[in-house]
Parts: sequence; C-alpha cells; structure tokens
Amino acid sequence: MKYPMRIEILCTGDEILTGKTINTNYGYMARRLVEVGLDVCWGTTVGDDRESLLEAFRQAAVRADAVIVNGGLGPTVDDLSQEMAAQAAGVELVLHEAWLARMEEFYRRRNRVMPPNNRKQAMLPSNAEFIDNPVGTACGFAVTIDNARFFFTPGVPREMRRMIDEQVIPRLLKLGGVPGVSKVKRFHSFGIGESRADQMLDGIEALAPGGGVKLGFQAHYPELETKLAARGVDAAELARKLEPVEAEVRRRLGNFIVAEDDQTLESVVLAALRRKGGTLALAETFTGGTIATRLTPADSADGLFRRGVVARDLGQLCASIGMAPGAEVGGVSPAGASAVASALREKSGSSHALAVLIAVDEGTDGIELGGTICIGIADGGAPMSRQARMFGGRDWIRLGASEMALDCLRRHLLGLPVDEQVDFERR
Amino acid sequence: MKYPMRIEILCTGDEILTGKTINTNYGYMARRLVEVGLDVCWGTTVGDDRESLLEAFRQAAVRADAVIVNGGLGPTVDDLSQEMAAQAAGVELVLHEAWLARMEEFYRRRNRVMPPNNRKQAMLPSNAEFIDNPVGTACGFAVTIDNARFFFTPGVPREMRRMIDEQVIPRLLKLGGVPGVSKVKRFHSFGIGESRADQMLDGIEALAPGGGVKLGFQAHYPELETKLAARGVDAAELARKLEPVEAEVRRRLGNFIVAEDDQTLESVVLAALRRKGGTLALAETFTGGTIATRLTPADSADGLFRRGVVARDLGQLCASIGMAPGAEVGGVSPAGASAVASALREKSGSSHALAVLIAVDEGTDGIELGGTICIGIADGGAPMSRQARMFGGRDWIRLGASEMALDCLRRHLLGLPVDEQVDFERR
Repeated sequence: MKYPMRIEILCTGDEILTGKTINTNYGYMARRLVEVGLDVCWGTTVGDDRESLLEAFRQAAVRADAVIVNGGLGPTVDDLSQEMAAQAAGVELVLHEAWLARMEEFYRRRNRVMPPNNRKQAMLPSNAEFIDNPVGTACGFAVTIDNARFFFTPGVPREMRRMIDEQVIPRLLKLGGVPGVSKVKRFHSFGIGESRADQMLDGIEALAPGGGVKLGFQAHYPELETKLAARGVDAAELARKLEPVEAEVRRRLGNFIVAEDDQTLESVVLAALRRKGGTLALAETFTGGTIATRLTPADSADGLFRRGVVARDLGQLCASIGMAPGAEVGGVSPAGASAVASALREKSGSSHALAVLIAVDEGTDGIELGGTICIGIADGGAPMSRQARMFGGRDWIRLGASEMALDCLRRHLLGLPVDEQVDFERR
Repeated sequence: MKYPMRIEILCTGDEILTGKTINTNYGYMARRLVEVGLDVCWGTTVGDDRESLLEAFRQAAVRADAVIVNGGLGPTVDDLSQEMAAQAAGVELVLHEAWLARMEEFYRRRNRVMPPNNRKQAMLPSNAEFIDNPVGTACGFAVTIDNARFFFTPGVPREMRRMIDEQVIPRLLKLGGVPGVSKVKRFHSFGIGESRADQMLDGIEALAPGGGVKLGFQAHYPELETKLAARGVDAAELARKLEPVEAEVRRRLGNFIVAEDDQTLESVVLAALRRKGGTLALAETFTGGTIATRLTPADSADGLFRRGVVARDLGQLCASIGMAPGAEVGGVSPAGASAVASALREKSGSSHALAVLIAVDEGTDGIELGGTICIGIADGGAPMSRQARMFGGRDWIRLGASEMALDCLRRHLLGLPVDEQVDFERR
C-alpha cells in the first residue's frame, strides 16, 4: 500500500441523501481520520437502492485505497450494504454463526426474543473480515473490492463512533503502513481568533523532537479549539514529542486557555468552585438563561450551582433578588453589576455570585449591532467587575457575553486577571 | 429532458471534506429539492484540488441530468469552481463586466475599495448563464457539461439559501418540465410520534383535487414537523389543492399542533399572552434555564416574559421566590407545582406564572432512566396542574419537560385541555 493512502467515505441511506436526517457521521469520521494523520480524499452519499450502491462501490474501488461505508447494516429490507458488498466483491453471503449467537444472547439478556429479520444482520460476504460491534446488533466487516479495502460501519452514531475509533482506524493505520500510536491533544480558548492564534503558535510544530506533531484549529464561536495531532512509535515517544509543544501552547495562549481535552469552561469553573468549597448564584439579563443552562446539566452542578435569576428588565431583576427599589440606580454599569452580585450573594447564601447585565444598542439586528456587557462577581471580599463592548448582532452578543461571564468567574476563582482584552471586544 | 430528472449535489472545499466545517448546506439543498417534488440521486464531496474537481464534474455529468455545485466561488487561490467549470465545459473564462461593476458598487457603498483579487469572482465560463447573488460578491452561474446542466452556488449559507430558493429551483423545475408553482405547508406538533402521525394522516393526500400534494415528516424530538409539499399551475390552484388537506391535518392532529410554518411553540405562547394583555413569570428546576432561553431571544418577549428563577433544589427555588420555609412541603407534586406557581405569580406581579418541578429517578443515565414532571400554572383563578412520567435519560427528560410545560401553558391560554396524553409519557 502506498502512503499516503487515498481514503474515501461513502454514506448510504435515503434519509441522509434527502437531507431528512442531518449527516453528522460524515464529519465525525473525517475529523477522526485527519486527527490520526490520514487523508480523506472523497465523500459520496447515495440512497438505499441497489444500482446506486453498486455504482458507488465500483467507483470508490477505482479511486481509493480504502473506503469507509456507513449505514445499511440494519435488519430491514432497505438495508442493502451486505448484499451489495458481496455482489461487488463477487462472492456469496454466508451466515456468521458467532454473530448470530451474539445477537440472540443480546436479546436474551433483555428478556426478548430476537425478531427473525435480525438474522439478516449476521449474513456477511463469504470472504469478509468480521468487525465487532460491542454496543449494537449491526456488526461491521471488511472486504476487498478490486484493490481497495472496504470497511462497513453502522449508521447509528454511537455504534459508528466506537467502531471507527477502536476497530477501523487501527486497521487503516496498519494498512497504510503508518507506524505506532497517535493522540490528539486539545486546548479550548476564549478571546483569541483563529488567525491570531495561528500567528501566535507559529513554528510550534518544530519543537517536537523528530517531528510528528501537527497543529490545527477548529473555531466554534466564541471558543477556539487548538489541536495537536501527534504520532509516535509508542506512548512514551508520543509523550516526549507532545510535552514541549503542549508546554509552549500553554505558555503562548496562557490565560486564554479555558479548558483542555474533554473539559468545558463550565466544568472548569465548577471544579474550581468545588475546590474552594464554594457555591454559586447567578443573575442574568439579556443572556436569558444561557449561562444557567450551561451550568445545570453537569452532574457536578448538583449543590454547587444553587440558583439563577433571569430578567430582561433590570428593575425586575433587582426586585426578584429582593433588592430595595431604586437599588438598581447604577443601571448597566460595572458598579451596578457588582451591586447586583453582592445582593444576590447575600440573599442566596452562596459563597459566590455572578451578575451579567447587558444593554444592547438601539437599532436593527445585524453584524454592526453592539452591546455593553457588565459583569459583577461577589465573593464577600472587594467588589469585582468587568465591562466590555461587543458587536455582531443579538445572538453573537448573547453567546459572547455568556462565555465572557463564565470566563471572568474562572479567572477570578483561579487568581488570574479578569480584564485581559479579548479579540471579540472593542476598546 | 426526461422526468423525473436525476439531480446530484456536489459540495466542494477542504474544510467540508475534512469535517472541519459541518456541511449544513447539503441538507438544506436536498430538503428544498424534495419539498418542491424533485429527486436527489447522488451526493459528492471533494476538496479544493483541480484533479478531484474535474473528475467529480465529469462523473456527475455522466450520472445526472442536473448538478448543483456548492462552494469554490470565493476570491482566494483555492477557489477553483469557475476555472474547473470552464475546463470541463471546454471553454475559456471571460470577464463578466456587469458583475464586476456590481462588486465595485458593493464595496463603494461600504466606503471601501474592492481588493484586486475579487476581480476573479467576475470571471465566468464564456458560455455561462449568469445567476444573480443579491447578498454577496460570489455570483452564481450555469453551464452545460456533456448533457448535464450544472448550477454553481456560493458556499456562504445565507447566499446559498437565497440563490437555491429564488434562482436554482425555478430553473430546475423548468428544466425538468415541472409545471407551475410549489409551496410547503408545515405543522409543528408535540405529543405524537412519527409512525402514529403517519397512521393518523393515512389517505390525506387524496383529498387534494387532482392530486399534487405530498405528505412528509421530519422528527426533531420533542416536536414532529408534518409537511405538505404541493404543486399547482398557479397560486390559486395551489390554494385549492392545499385547503382541504390542511383542514384535515388540523382536524386529525387537533390540539397537538403547537405551531404552523415559521411560528414556534414559544412564539405562539407569547402571542396568546399578549392578546390577553398578560405577563409571565417562570420557575424551573431540572430544566435549568432551558425554558427561559426559549422565551428570551424572541423580540416579542420584551416585557411579556418578566422573570425566571432556576434552582435544582426545591428549597432553594422556594426561598428564591420568597416562599415561607416549609411551603415546599408538597415536594414534586401537582399541588407543589401549583403552590410554587401561585407564590411566584404573586411575588412577581405577573398575570401568569408557570412552575416546572421535576424529580429524576435514581440510577445511571440511559434510555431507561425516567423522571416525574409536575407542571403548575397560576393565573389568579383556580390552581391548574399536570403530572407526567417520561423516560429516555436526562437530556430527553429535560427536552420533553420543557416542551410539555410550554405546551401546557399554550393549551391553558387557548382554552384547550392541558392533560391530553402524549406519546412520550407513560401512564
């Protein structure tokens, strides 16, 4: 097999083809391949019909060295992947006894009898390599068509993701003669745009001894994800290569890194709060519950995030906190935000309170529309506040303000400066 | 041109191919084609390289009667669509003077000088049909390659959507010999699953005089979208065909229809509240701000949605409303929900209050995990409540409870029964 391999992704199914179901599987597979250093060269989508599937398999076999096929492994009549794979490979379908037994066991454990049409899911091309699915009834398999290796994966996202990560990618790396192991280190930052981050991290890949670390970005406003995709002969070499690059990313992006890997900004905030033995109360205006919804789903929020108050009108907000009429006299200002936070902290009995007051400019919504954001934090010590001007329209301001508020709290809890300028504000 | 036409969608760009950017354009284009009665037969994704683009154009030209190409019309060196379209069609690129003038005017109106590389965007294949883009600098165009008609559209979603709707679809309908005009009527319902809705609406297409109305569904839990795609020679015929089918959908789905077309459940709730001259206060527990965020962004919420309170702990919730300690003695119960709603209504001075109390069962998260949802509504009259058991795990319960709470309020405001059983609850 030549390197780099040409890899193609082939998604099947009428619901995907017609846009009825959004194809999130394609993006996951493509990103995972890129992260481990493999190339995606082509993507194809076809419906559940024999002619299209056969044509797609044949064209992909000519173009690519390896093909990942997604979908069509279910028990119903419109699931045709095994049948058309056998036809394209020029072999018969045969019963895979071991998988049939596994499926029967799967149903038995749930006190159900396997429906007869599930048997179809154990019919594989006679020369197929079996690929395990530990979380569903659609097993995967691999066959060779012309000179390309085809990997068949289930359409259910959870099953697909596990099979891609644990079964398909190791086989692709071996097939492509790509040695060793790989890892993706991820940093989540707020306040630095993609092009500036790219400049700030210039030359960083060269710090890996012997190379093998590739820098990439994925922007999802207001956060930027910085990825280091690394490859080495073993875990020890991987760690040696990554360590100096990781350290330098942390040094250069500094306080703007809000979380790493599977952490989120909110999980970092809650963990910092827990370490202090603290609790949190929250007052929101224009963000309208956006900050509360980020804090609530986390299991770890139980008991830490005590209460939240939402009101568009500042008078209503103050009244619902129990502030005396006229206490909001400062309006949307740093002093006003501090006052609301202090009152809220006292009334709620929380150790910390966060208040986010926003005044959106007059005018029609659009990228030129701006707003003033005032963030107050109370912890029983000196009042703390931060003011910023952001632009980009209502949704943009709402997202940016939510992120900035949580980031201010993170910075405060971690003893970092709360008012470093971010790329999304104008001073 | 034979009917039905074979239509293919060809998406271009490295960011799409590698999954860095989620390809939402594909789904939009496919859905719109299906809605107007056209067939999507194939989807292809390739990167920004000449060889792949040329191969993709040539293969699509053989397979399809019409091809929509998306992306690659920008001003940078990796935008190659015009160049490769000209090569595949066997013609030269020529300057489209009128579009160049339009672009210069576009920049002049913004008090900026057009960068020289934008000129590239006015270079079209010599035999191209110009397609207007009223909202950007990437014009579209159409050329014939072999026997297929290719429509080139910009990758920016807002520009793509407008060009597809206003320019490409009318041309495709004409090309395919599809007569007249089309329309999609949409109903949003809560409480009826897709398969049951399909049964309930059985035979409904036949009510359209002379046919021409097609029924379809799109499920996005907890709502189901029911679509009637209609076609007729003119607007009057379209109305005649749709009227009896629409009326029958309203009759059969009845109270479960929460909104139509561009309305949302929350916009319907706020409109009903406004008609009554009312205002709303909200208390949430496990939904954690999810309901507040649905009400807040609507401009119409200004002044109507007065305040919201969020707390996971019922004692905290009651305390933040200012209820006396021990007032929450009913716990998560219909009586407890009514009591919280009544207290909140009184404290906030709103005409209406909605309280949503939830007790999630003990156990690990998963599709078997359930929860008890108690919804209380106070409007100064007799207390009103609704209890339900839902299953499907934490996120599913959160989404279902948010929808059910808003739906109860809608039903109450419109004088409909608030406790009709929905498919997502177990009694």
